[in-house]
Amino acid sequence: MSQSSEQSITKRKDDFSKWYQDVIDGAQLAEHGSAKGTMVIRPYGYAIWENMQKVLDAMFKETGVQNAYFPLFIPESFLKKEADHVEGFAPEVAVVTHAGGKKLEEPLIVRPTSETIINDSYSRWIQSYRDLPLLINQWANIVRWEMRPRLFLRTTEFLWQEGHTVHATKEDAEDRVQMMLDVYKKFVEEYLAMPVIAGRKSDTEKFAGADFTTCIEAMMQDKKALQAGTSHMLGQNFAKVFDVKFLNEDGEQEYGWQTSWGVSTRMIGGLIMTHSDDNGLVVPPKIAPTHAVIIPIFSDEKEKKQVMPVAEDLAEKLKLEDLKIILDDRDMRPGPRFFEWEKKGVPIRIEIGPKDIKNNSVVAVRRDTGEKENIKQDECAKKIPNILDDIQKNLFEKASKFLKDNTHEVSYWDEFKKIMQNNGGFISAYWCGNAKCEQEIKDETKATIRCIPFCQDNGSGKCVHCDKTGKQKVIFAKAY
Amino acid sequence: MSQSSEQSITKRKDDFSKWYQDVIDGAQLAEHGSAKGTMVIRPYGYAIWENMQKVLDAMFKETGVQNAYFPLFIPESFLKKEADHVEGFAPEVAVVTHAGGKKLEEPLIVRPTSETIINDSYSRWIQSYRDLPLLINQWANIVRWEMRPRLFLRTTEFLWQEGHTVHATKEDAEDRVQMMLDVYKKFVEEYLAMPVIAGRKSDTEKFAGADFTTCIEAMMQDKKALQAGTSHMLGQNFAKVFDVKFLNEDGEQEYGWQTSWGVSTRMIGGLIMTHSDDNGLVVPPKIAPTHAVIIPIFSDEKEKKQVMPVAEDLAEKLKLEDLKIILDDRDMRPGPRFFEWEKKGVPIRIEIGPKDIKNNSVVAVRRDTGEKENIKQDECAKKIPNILDDIQKNLFEKASKFLKDNTHEVSYWDEFKKIMQNNGGFISAYWCGNAKCEQEIKDETKATIRCIPFCQDNGSGKCVHCDKTGKQKVIFAKAY
Repeated sequence: MSQSSEQSITKRKDDFSKWYQDVIDGAQLAEHGSAKGTMVIRPYGYAIWENMQKVLDAMFKETGVQNAYFPLFIPESFLKKEADHVEGFAPEVAVVTHAGGKKLEEPLIVRPTSETIINDSYSRWIQSYRDLPLLINQWANIVRWEMRPRLFLRTTEFLWQEGHTVHATKEDAEDRVQMMLDVYKKFVEEYLAMPVIAGRKSDTEKFAGADFTTCIEAMMQDKKALQAGTSHMLGQNFAKVFDVKFLNEDGEQEYGWQTSWGVSTRMIGGLIMTHSDDNGLVVPPKIAPTHAVIIPIFSDEKEKKQVMPVAEDLAEKLKLEDLKIILDDRDMRPGPRFFEWEKKGVPIRIEIGPKDIKNNSVVAVRRDTGEKENIKQDECAKKIPNILDDIQKNLFEKASKFLKDNTHEVSYWDEFKKIMQNNGGFISAYWCGNAKCEQEIKDETKATIRCIPFCQDNGSGKCVHCDKTGKQKVIFAKAY
Repeated sequence: MSQSSEQSITKRKDDFSKWYQDVIDGAQLAEHGSAKGTMVIRPYGYAIWENMQKVLDAMFKETGVQNAYFPLFIPESFLKKEADHVEGFAPEVAVVTHAGGKKLEEPLIVRPTSETIINDSYSRWIQSYRDLPLLINQWANIVRWEMRPRLFLRTTEFLWQEGHTVHATKEDAEDRVQMMLDVYKKFVEEYLAMPVIAGRKSDTEKFAGADFTTCIEAMMQDKKALQAGTSHMLGQNFAKVFDVKFLNEDGEQEYGWQTSWGVSTRMIGGLIMTHSDDNGLVVPPKIAPTHAVIIPIFSDEKEKKQVMPVAEDLAEKLKLEDLKIILDDRDMRPGPRFFEWEKKGVPIRIEIGPKDIKNNSVVAVRRDTGEKENIKQDECAKKIPNILDDIQKNLFEKASKFLKDNTHEVSYWDEFKKIMQNNGGFISAYWCGNAKCEQEIKDETKATIRCIPFCQDNGSGKCVHCDKTGKQKVIFAKAY
């Protein structure tokens, strides 16, 4: 559709950042918008997002969550009510000062997240313990000003979902925090084929206004970390400032216990940097807009008459298996067609030429490994779904091995620095728990605490930086 | 969930506008947001919107349309490029002047519609006739400043979809304009059970920047008109200012021919004002979040043990028929439960008490007519879907009769004024085609030309206002 699809892709080892942009251009996923930092999500990129939404939305609803929609504009005074919250978000908000041809009496903030505006409603909706738990999600656009925008990873406007729940007890809220992180982990690992480490954020890295934040962290192919989802325990912080109270079973007024949790179009950036290669995008079958592309090959009208009916018949058969199939019969040589779909990361390419017709077979080419296989035409409906399953599995295993191979158990500060100088991946090490120490590590190496993994061996050891005793191992890495 | 559900509903004849607000409160569809003119769409209202989206989205895709997402923020200079467009929208836009802690060099407009920002992308995406037609839709939030907001009908922020297509010829574009209006008409009539009149807008009422606008117009129960959807022929107007050109088959550069079309959360307002009654909301089964609510009735534990298994069994059976069922076994007297679901407009209420258990039957109560029917338990899986079909049909027929009964063929100005004084509905009358005459009619009666219906008898007659000859009958009405 556009010129970009004819350009070649920078190699990962030459310039990872340029490779990333080339993969996006080559697959026509997105482009920069005209207002600085904004993003246009093109149809192919949006189709991936729609698939993500569909799966996640069903998973949320399975846990009792309902969708709703809250306003884009937040009165400036709302944002200021929760002290940590405003401190965290004020520097990156966009402000509407004029509307309807007039200066507004109170400026409006374009939502950077919706805790405040949602709690304003919740304070009216909740009266009694019978109204709890209140489990609501919204799919929405969010604005956080970005000085150094990158498509999908950091854009001034992005799309996300944000869940906001209220519970009668602290325990119920904490269970929900964990439940939604588990949903994210399951989704990211099973659908996006991205292995993640689940854990808790350090206080420095937690959400502005939360008691604590849990997260899942993935490793990109440049060995940097990407936060793929967060689930926050808000405690009673917002409930107190927005007066979200309920009458408990004993007839007493109590503040509600709250959670919030979200994932965004950032996940698409993670997907790209986990699986794609020097030939372009690689999309896991379970989230792919197209499972297989059928390319009929012929050099004259006679061959076309032989090949096309078989190609059309195969497309119909595979659609009956619930697969999304494109039959690319454009009047172009095979090479450019192969090249285009390879860059779009379609999991399987099926070639059918005159020779295949003679053998009653087709050639199936896997996007993940490049392997070619001759398949009898009448076995395609059975074998193609199996290959897709295998691709899904292979992508997860390959990424899991990469994560494992590049996660290092480190005890000494010299070793830590050396690994980080070479951008060597994740470091698992004891940490004293001190924010000052955390900051010094960051200043010296650019590595931050990605999470305090839930899986701990209950041991203790010397902090990798300051030698004080630490009770928990944490994951350090450079991060997006 | 909230106190509002316990309040009673104003009668339509006493105060239609208050009745409308009461229906929304009673069904917990939406509420006003804290920033002036904004709207919170509550879970029950949003569930209706989700159902609308799901059906429409599938209908769009059936015609080859793909979804994408374009930025919320439009550089101010873009809006100014098309003269009519800026004149139409400038007075109602919201403007971001500050972001990231700084004053912006160029203010950003929060999109009031996306023709300009989308054409900026299209100018890069389209090179050749092979790239056409380009058929893209987005689901998005839109901001147009409202001085007198009303939930769903006029809100500062609303949700909608906007389709934007580019074609190689004028004919192709005009066909698409009509195709999408037909999609809207089919959706609104078959799913929302709202009969509409399809036609073209007068030049005064057309979209700012279009060659012409087509629309569907519905009649509310107060006999006022509601525009339920529009499909615009943009000609080459935006293509010329945004340089959307393509190389045609003869190797010449041409400007693309464009359309845009949209429906919004306003449709929910139309749905309410078409079908609801003095007891609250009425939702057509095809768009209802819940098809039937089962209310078990018992006065002690012994009766509960008899009734509950039957109620649970029935719920399961009906779910197998692809119906969305709620089993309301809350520890409350039947009356308040009946009252609550009635206000939410659930199409069928199924009561099961000890007497029904003895007779192996249930009582089914229709929301549209209030009719009660005893149904044998083992016939429910067959009969309940039939009743739902009948409700859908009945709602459409009732609204069609209302539209017909309140549409008047008028030839004389005195009669016109008299009907409009009494707010008598739609007037079908000849019009000279003169904008000045149109304005005088509006000034004198508040009635505007809702549309020039496609169905014309090819006759001609004297303009109802000025006596000049008019070639087309048009529909006049007061409108939302």
